[in-house]
Amino acid sequence: MKKKRVSITDIAKALNVTPSTVSRALNNGGKVSEKKKQQILALAKELGYRPNPIARSLVENKTQTIGLIIPEFTHHFYSRVLAGIESVTSKAGYQLLICTSNEKKKQEIKSFQTLLDARVDGILATICKKNDEFDHLQEVLDSGTPLVLMDRICEEIETSYVISDDFVGAFQAVDFLIQTGCTQIIHIKGPKVLSTSFNRFMGYKEALKKHLIAFNEDLVFEGNDPELAEKISACLKSNAVDGIFAYSDYLAFEAFKVLKNEGISIPDQVSIVGYADEPISSYVTPQLSSVNQKPFEMGAIAAGLLLNQIQDPETPLEFKSLKTELVLRASTKTFKEIPV
Amino acid sequence: MKKKRVSITDIAKALNVTPSTVSRALNNGGKVSEKKKQQILALAKELGYRPNPIARSLVENKTQTIGLIIPEFTHHFYSRVLAGIESVTSKAGYQLLICTSNEKKKQEIKSFQTLLDARVDGILATICKKNDEFDHLQEVLDSGTPLVLMDRICEEIETSYVISDDFVGAFQAVDFLIQTGCTQIIHIKGPKVLSTSFNRFMGYKEALKKHLIAFNEDLVFEGNDPELAEKISACLKSNAVDGIFAYSDYLAFEAFKVLKNEGISIPDQVSIVGYADEPISSYVTPQLSSVNQKPFEMGAIAAGLLLNQIQDPETPLEFKSLKTELVLRASTKTFKEIPV
Repeated sequence: MKKKRVSITDIAKALNVTPSTVSRALNNGGKVSEKKKQQILALAKELGYRPNPIARSLVENKTQTIGLIIPEFTHHFYSRVLAGIESVTSKAGYQLLICTSNEKKKQEIKSFQTLLDARVDGILATICKKNDEFDHLQEVLDSGTPLVLMDRICEEIETSYVISDDFVGAFQAVDFLIQTGCTQIIHIKGPKVLSTSFNRFMGYKEALKKHLIAFNEDLVFEGNDPELAEKISACLKSNAVDGIFAYSDYLAFEAFKVLKNEGISIPDQVSIVGYADEPISSYVTPQLSSVNQKPFEMGAIAAGLLLNQIQDPETPLEFKSLKTELVLRASTKTFKEIPV
Repeated sequence: MKKKRVSITDIAKALNVTPSTVSRALNNGGKVSEKKKQQILALAKELGYRPNPIARSLVENKTQTIGLIIPEFTHHFYSRVLAGIESVTSKAGYQLLICTSNEKKKQEIKSFQTLLDARVDGILATICKKNDEFDHLQEVLDSGTPLVLMDRICEEIETSYVISDDFVGAFQAVDFLIQTGCTQIIHIKGPKVLSTSFNRFMGYKEALKKHLIAFNEDLVFEGNDPELAEKISACLKSNAVDGIFAYSDYLAFEAFKVLKNEGISIPDQVSIVGYADEPISSYVTPQLSSVNQKPFEMGAIAAGLLLNQIQDPETPLEFKSLKTELVLRASTKTFKEIPV
C-alpha cells in the first residue's frame, strides 16, 4: 500500500554505484560517464525519485519559506494577522510554514526549533503568554535568522517589532467612557506577564488621571480569576459602577452576562468597551464597542520588515507602533458634545 | 547586526580542508585525524555552528513533524480541527507544520510541495474549494508519504478519510424543521465543487421526500450568489416560506438579515437552521440552531490514523464518517411530540 520514499542510496544500490555518483548524475555534476548517467536518470524516473530541494537549499542557503509562530487561531485577531502576512509573502513568492504555541512555552521553543530545522529564511512570531525567559529567541538571532516579533514586546530581545499602541488604545476607550458620563469604571485586566495587559492598564489609569478621577483598586479585576463573575457581581452592588473597560472582547462578554443576570441595562446604566474588535462584537445584543488593533496591517507590515531583512541583512531594526481605532457600537452611550 | 548562518563550507574554508572532512569530523564519521578533528570541533563551537537535523533526517528519513494543510482559520471549525489534531500529535511527540491554501488551488499545490520539501513524516489536509484536479495529491501518495484527508472527499484519491456525515446531518436538520411545522423550506447551498455541499443538499431533499413534500427548485439558492439577499427577499414575498436550512452558519446569518429587514419574526414565522455550530451562533439573537460536525473529534481521529500509517505503512486505509449533532437553540420552534 505504502511505498517507501526513494532515496539516492536506493538508486545507487540498484545500479551498484556510489550514492555520490547518483547525486552527480542527477545534478549534472560531471564526473559521470554519459552511459551511467542515462542509466541513473532512467531508473530515478522509473522509481519516482523526487529531488530534494531541502538538500539543495543546504548549498544555496535559501528555501523561500518564512516561519510563523502564533499562539492559537481561536481568536479572530490571529487569523487577521495571518491574512495580512499572506497578503505580502504570497506576492513576494514566499511560502509560510506556521506553528502554534498554544500559549505554552515548551511548545513555543519546539516551534522555533522546528522552523530553524526547516531552514526558513526568516521568522515572524507572537510570543506566548507564559514567556519569562527568552534564550530560544536569542538563539534565533544568534543563528543569523531574521526575526520580527508582533503584538507582544519582549524587552530582552533586540529585534524588529510591530505592535499596536495599546496604551493609547486603552486611553481613548476610557477617555470616551468618561466623556459620555461614566466615572466609576471597572477594568478587567489581561494575563499578568504580557506587555499588552500592562499597557492597557496604564492607558486606563492615564485616562482617569486626565479627568481627575481617583484610581480605585476595588474596580480592577484579573481576567483569569475563576471567580471573576462573582466578584464583578459583588462590586456592582457595593459601587455605583457606570462603565466597564475590558482587556478583551471575550472578557467584556463575561461582564455582559453578569449585567444581564443582574438586570442592569447596557448602556443606560453601565457602558462597556471591549478590546480587539472580534467579529462576535457585531453579533451580540447590544453590539459591543471595541478597540480595533488593525491586525491585518500588523501582519502585512511585519512581513514587509522581515522580507527587507532577508533581502538585506544590514537593514536597520525597526519598532513600529500602530494606531488603534475605537469602534463605537451600541454598548456605549453616544458622545455628548460639551457645549461651547 | 545580522550574522550569516555558519555552514560546513565556512568551517572547511577557514581550515583549508574539504567540506566532507568537516562533515565527517562533526558526525564522528572516521577518516579524519584526531588533531584535525579537534581543530574542526573547536572552530565549529567558536563560530556557533548549528548541526542541521534536516540533513541528518535525509539519512534517518524521519523528522518527527507532521504537515497540515487547512483552507483558512477564519472559520472556527478549522481552529477546532487543529486543536483536535494537536491533542494527539503533541502527546506523540510530533511537531505540526501548518500551511494554508486560502481556498486557492495554486497555493494548495505549493503547500504540499513545501511540506514534502520539509520532509514531514505525513500530511493531514482539507482540500480547497477550487479543486478539480488532483495530480498533486497523487504525487504525495506516490512519494510514499502517508496522507489523511479531512472533511471534504476527493473521489479520485484513494487514501484515508475522516469526514462528518453531512447527508445525515442535513437530513436531521430538515426533518426537525418539518416535524416542528415547516413545509416550505428554503435551502441555501454551499460551493459547487465540494462534496459537503452536495451531501447537505441531498440530505435536505431526502427529508422532504420522507415527509412527502414536493421538492421545489424555486426554494434553492446558491450561497455565493452576489444577489442572494435580494433573491431570498423576493422568494419570501412569492412563497409561503416557513423554514430555512443553510449550508453554513454564515449563510444562515445572511438570511437572518433579510428576515429582520422584512420584519419577519424568527422562529414564529420562519425557523432557521445553520451548519457548523460556529461560536457566533450562541451570540446572535435569537440564538441559531445549527449542526455540529464535531471538528475536534475529526482532527483527533485523523491524526490518530496518520500516526498509525507513519508507524506502520501496512496499516489499511480507513474511511471514517462522524455523526453530527443537531444543536437546538432559539431560531427553531420547540419540538411538538406527535400524540400517540
